[in-house]
Amino acid sequence: MKLYGENNPAPNPRKVRIFLAEKGIEVPQVRVSIMKREHKAPEFLKKNSLGQLPVLELDDGTYIAESLAICRYFEALQPKPALFGESAIEQALVEMWIRRAEFRLWNPMSQVWINADPRTAVVNPNQFKDYGEHNKKIVANNMRWLDGELSDGRAFLAGSSFSMADIVLLCGLDFSHFIGLDIPPECGALRAWHARVSARPSAAA
Amino acid sequence: MKLYGENNPAPNPRKVRIFLAEKGIEVPQVRVSIMKREHKAPEFLKKNSLGQLPVLELDDGTYIAESLAICRYFEALQPKPALFGESAIEQALVEMWIRRAEFRLWNPMSQVWINADPRTAVVNPNQFKDYGEHNKKIVANNMRWLDGELSDGRAFLAGSSFSMADIVLLCGLDFSHFIGLDIPPECGALRAWHARVSARPSAAA
Repeated sequence: MKLYGENNPAPNPRKVRIFLAEKGIEVPQVRVSIMKREHKAPEFLKKNSLGQLPVLELDDGTYIAESLAICRYFEALQPKPALFGESAIEQALVEMWIRRAEFRLWNPMSQVWINADPRTAVVNPNQFKDYGEHNKKIVANNMRWLDGELSDGRAFLAGSSFSMADIVLLCGLDFSHFIGLDIPPECGALRAWHARVSARPSAAA
Repeated sequence: MKLYGENNPAPNPRKVRIFLAEKGIEVPQVRVSIMKREHKAPEFLKKNSLGQLPVLELDDGTYIAESLAICRYFEALQPKPALFGESAIEQALVEMWIRRAEFRLWNPMSQVWINADPRTAVVNPNQFKDYGEHNKKIVANNMRWLDGELSDGRAFLAGSSFSMADIVLLCGLDFSHFIGLDIPPECGALRAWHARVSARPSAAA
């Protein structure tokens, strides 16, 4: 088994590293340099025709792409500690919050990165800058919405247990910071949550 | 238990209806009219602060939003027939294809709907029309990519078994058609897959 990934700040490979650290699972890792465009090389496209990271190669030759799919594979192999929830309700709420973190933070954040960040202009010369700028406001508004949701005092995004939803939100917020989108100062609950989750040893993975 | 949803063409409630039909599960349904903006009314925002459909209300008062989260709830309650995969590899591949269908089809399709469709201009007067138009090309290109992936002769998106990934792709393609984005004529494998999945009784749910 091999895990093809990339170092920080690439947020998708990081989700898998944090997940594995929380599970205590070690997988041999192969770095694929995004800066050198190795993820778009013909050899890598045979592993994932979309040319994206991370990818997990199994011993039978199966390739699993998409960070959440890789994490679900390991959750099925080693259910404890449960990071996608245990009971049916927990499983549903973890999935709900994973998707809310993605739709509310990752999607507009990605629009800013693709359409308004000078670092992506090289590979994406056809940027829609106005739309990228517009999404900066959406990110800030949605961070405020997340802050409101977290203001009920719960410890983690999907309830009282740390879950994959926290990993998704953490990696999204840290990548947002990397591209200049910080948590608004008034968002005390979201900031406290971020500090709490960042203090876990897995966050350094 | 109650399922708050909307009639066709709303693609997210439809995913859950098809899933329940495949499982043979019946849940009392409450229609929430999007045209009448009932999903944005204060009473409904107490169920889902994002004002989106579908939402499942459990007997203990828990609300589960996000179509995939609702489906995972029922998968945990009634695992057969498995629509999120059985083995660890199958579970991972179903998740991979759910996400690929979403990222490759649903995301650019949503940009067209939000930014370039006259029917959403009323609630979203600040449309970014150029970006919406640009995404029409992305949708077509990604349909060609899906066609290439399906050209290996497999029956369903994630392999030999019908799964949630097929439901996600079907609802995405049918909503794409509703907004004028048809499968390119040369995409024979994708068209054959669409005909095969549309012929299942669940597709009419």
